[in-house]
Amino acid sequence: MKRILLLGAGRSASSLIQYLLDNAPAESWHVTIGDIAVDHLQAKLAALDYADAIVFDVHNAAQRAAEVRQADLVISLLPAIFHIEVARECLQQEKHLITASYVTPAFLELHEEAKQKNLTILMESGLDPGIDHMSAMAVIERVQTMGGKITSFKSYTGGLVAPESDNNPWNYKFSWNPRNVVLAGQGTARYIQNGEYKYIPYHQLFRRTDKLFVEGYGHFDGYANRDSLSYREPYGLQDIPTMLRGTLRREGYCTAWDVFVQLGLTDDSYTLEGTESMTCRSFLETFLPPAASATESLQQRLSRYLAIPAEGEVMQKLEWLGLFEETPVGLKAATPAQVLEKILVGKWRLEPGDKDMIVMQHLFQYELEGEQHELTSSLVVLGDDEVHTAMAKTVGLPVGILAKLLLQGRIRKSGVIIPIHPELYEPVLEELKAYGIDFVEQEQVRSTAPERG
Amino acid sequence: MKRILLLGAGRSASSLIQYLLDNAPAESWHVTIGDIAVDHLQAKLAALDYADAIVFDVHNAAQRAAEVRQADLVISLLPAIFHIEVARECLQQEKHLITASYVTPAFLELHEEAKQKNLTILMESGLDPGIDHMSAMAVIERVQTMGGKITSFKSYTGGLVAPESDNNPWNYKFSWNPRNVVLAGQGTARYIQNGEYKYIPYHQLFRRTDKLFVEGYGHFDGYANRDSLSYREPYGLQDIPTMLRGTLRREGYCTAWDVFVQLGLTDDSYTLEGTESMTCRSFLETFLPPAASATESLQQRLSRYLAIPAEGEVMQKLEWLGLFEETPVGLKAATPAQVLEKILVGKWRLEPGDKDMIVMQHLFQYELEGEQHELTSSLVVLGDDEVHTAMAKTVGLPVGILAKLLLQGRIRKSGVIIPIHPELYEPVLEELKAYGIDFVEQEQVRSTAPERG
Repeated sequence: MKRILLLGAGRSASSLIQYLLDNAPAESWHVTIGDIAVDHLQAKLAALDYADAIVFDVHNAAQRAAEVRQADLVISLLPAIFHIEVARECLQQEKHLITASYVTPAFLELHEEAKQKNLTILMESGLDPGIDHMSAMAVIERVQTMGGKITSFKSYTGGLVAPESDNNPWNYKFSWNPRNVVLAGQGTARYIQNGEYKYIPYHQLFRRTDKLFVEGYGHFDGYANRDSLSYREPYGLQDIPTMLRGTLRREGYCTAWDVFVQLGLTDDSYTLEGTESMTCRSFLETFLPPAASATESLQQRLSRYLAIPAEGEVMQKLEWLGLFEETPVGLKAATPAQVLEKILVGKWRLEPGDKDMIVMQHLFQYELEGEQHELTSSLVVLGDDEVHTAMAKTVGLPVGILAKLLLQGRIRKSGVIIPIHPELYEPVLEELKAYGIDFVEQEQVRSTAPERG
Repeated sequence: MKRILLLGAGRSASSLIQYLLDNAPAESWHVTIGDIAVDHLQAKLAALDYADAIVFDVHNAAQRAAEVRQADLVISLLPAIFHIEVARECLQQEKHLITASYVTPAFLELHEEAKQKNLTILMESGLDPGIDHMSAMAVIERVQTMGGKITSFKSYTGGLVAPESDNNPWNYKFSWNPRNVVLAGQGTARYIQNGEYKYIPYHQLFRRTDKLFVEGYGHFDGYANRDSLSYREPYGLQDIPTMLRGTLRREGYCTAWDVFVQLGLTDDSYTLEGTESMTCRSFLETFLPPAASATESLQQRLSRYLAIPAEGEVMQKLEWLGLFEETPVGLKAATPAQVLEKILVGKWRLEPGDKDMIVMQHLFQYELEGEQHELTSSLVVLGDDEVHTAMAKTVGLPVGILAKLLLQGRIRKSGVIIPIHPELYEPVLEELKAYGIDFVEQEQVRSTAPERG
């Protein structure tokens, strides 16, 4: 019997838990699920002799050590900042670890020791990062094996709301940590285009979007992620002239979100005065220049300040959020970003029965035998409901499948790794198809070089 | 005999050094001037038995201790980050200290010990901060003594170029640390207006300027400093409805500078790829979206991206800087801000014979006996030449005068203090007049409340 310790049983863990429980009997697993709150799991697990749930406090070093000791494999879906402590414990006790989070410099420092101990610390194994790596590498490997040369790779992912549950003017609901959505894109986005490095400061990011189209799902806007450059090497695309990774939103979302950026509402670096007595309206007013006249409305002031059409879609989106209303904010000593998050959480909630949607699209250009190819690989995953979300499926299932492969001894790579190797991504992508997570490809061939831009 | 140790003999120290040397015989001072480079002083000081210059390395703790030990008063014009080590040494050895830099939290921690030891650590004693505090407090004290209630206080300072040396379209040359000019305003500006807190994010700062007018010198634009709130308490204006501190530039400068901000050229948080082979033109291009067509010029691209008139004053300012030219940048592994600084330093240099100019303007509104008063207090100081600048005079002379007062025993306040007390600012403002540093006041009285805005 193999023992799996899963840390973190929050919103995004539902599909992973189901996968582990479904596979446990045949794979001879015992699954222990640890979280600060496990009440919602107790009833479900009570009848199962191969699974249990424990109250787990990541700050309790003794408990952390004791639980890791009993495991063969640890999976952490805890908030990313807690992974490194778990990883150090795993190294110490010589256990494998899987997470869906980014490799950080602190993790790179563990690489050599993990290799020497023949341990696998498998990171970036969820959706984004995760499925994006795996599906991109499958195409890259195939093109390169044919002798093709990839000249452009752009890749976008978005966690959105399914069309049937899409009933607000933003065409967006939260299926993931709202704080991350509010802070998304801060810093400078860096990418490479036609061999030239490009930098987009945060205050231009939501204005410099690309237009995307996904068959059957319509149009999207994509904005660049902070770092599109660091994956050139792991992907084997060191000399690629154009590479960009980004985030997808429905058409019109970015233009309206840019209003928040321009006003300064997404700033998380300082605390506002007097948020305890603020309303949505006074919060907004705090960031506006004075009225031009005593009769100028708040909408007119905003419209004048940021050159937003007074009657257009952007203003409608802002009005729908209640930004011009005297609704109390109800937060003490909060940053602008915290106030904005509070307002959005009240409006962009997945309601009972709501389905979310994951959209991913890779756009490749490659040269093969004198011809220019354009290959688009697209994925759309719909959630079942507001609990079994597309986000939970696409984050949890690849983690679960990789856990199975690891415990079956089918992953021989050791050290701190990400799923860019065929022995990892081939079986994962294959098994994901059974869960409806399957990419659709479209390819065009031209004999002349495509317009670059 | 009293011994003064002056640390820092750079550009801004010339007037202070002259003041100390001029006063040394009558005051029975011995002046020791320490800097990494003192060659330029050796000849001048060789003939004087009451002054010497030493090569001083602030990182050399033994030298720091030895030199402070011999002094009665230490003056530091070193870069601000070095002050705290000097201050700790002064406390340890029970010596007074004067600097022209801001009180930081680290300095506040020294307050109690300095008080107990009856030592004076006198900060913010130059121009801005320094003369701004002193001249504002003189007005505030006078108005309050009359029974007036101050309802609005805005204060702006700028280090500029004198009209007779103003021969570039930016109407600006560097009279101070260029790096500080490039990074000025980063963060969020906070102030209070009509009782409401206001926040301006950096990317809006140079668009939300106030218009100022100084008799005989014309029009200026003022942008808000980061923190206009923290001086309410020391100024005794806790409940003031409107207070803003800002920086002055010539009309049109801020609109053009905003182009740099919008592009991201003032970002100092990351290193650009390939600056060693960059030209001004390619540096600019790095921050632009792709050309709309093969024939679109770089000027047209920029004009389209940021909605800048293709033929207007802003574009002329950018062209004058050579931003569209293939001039090599000549920097390795530099941040955008470092590249921009390099370009500007080549263009905005004070040439031999050039005079700089300091402009300061305080705008008060106060109520007195049912009447609304508007009082404007303005200062203009011109430099003598590119060495004896207005900046050096206005930074150095108040420091020198305060040093004299301190050594004469006329400053009884101890602890970490700033010159907001009459016993400090009255004699300083009086003596400054002899050097042509004198404020001009204008006052208007209305019986009805002024337009607020």
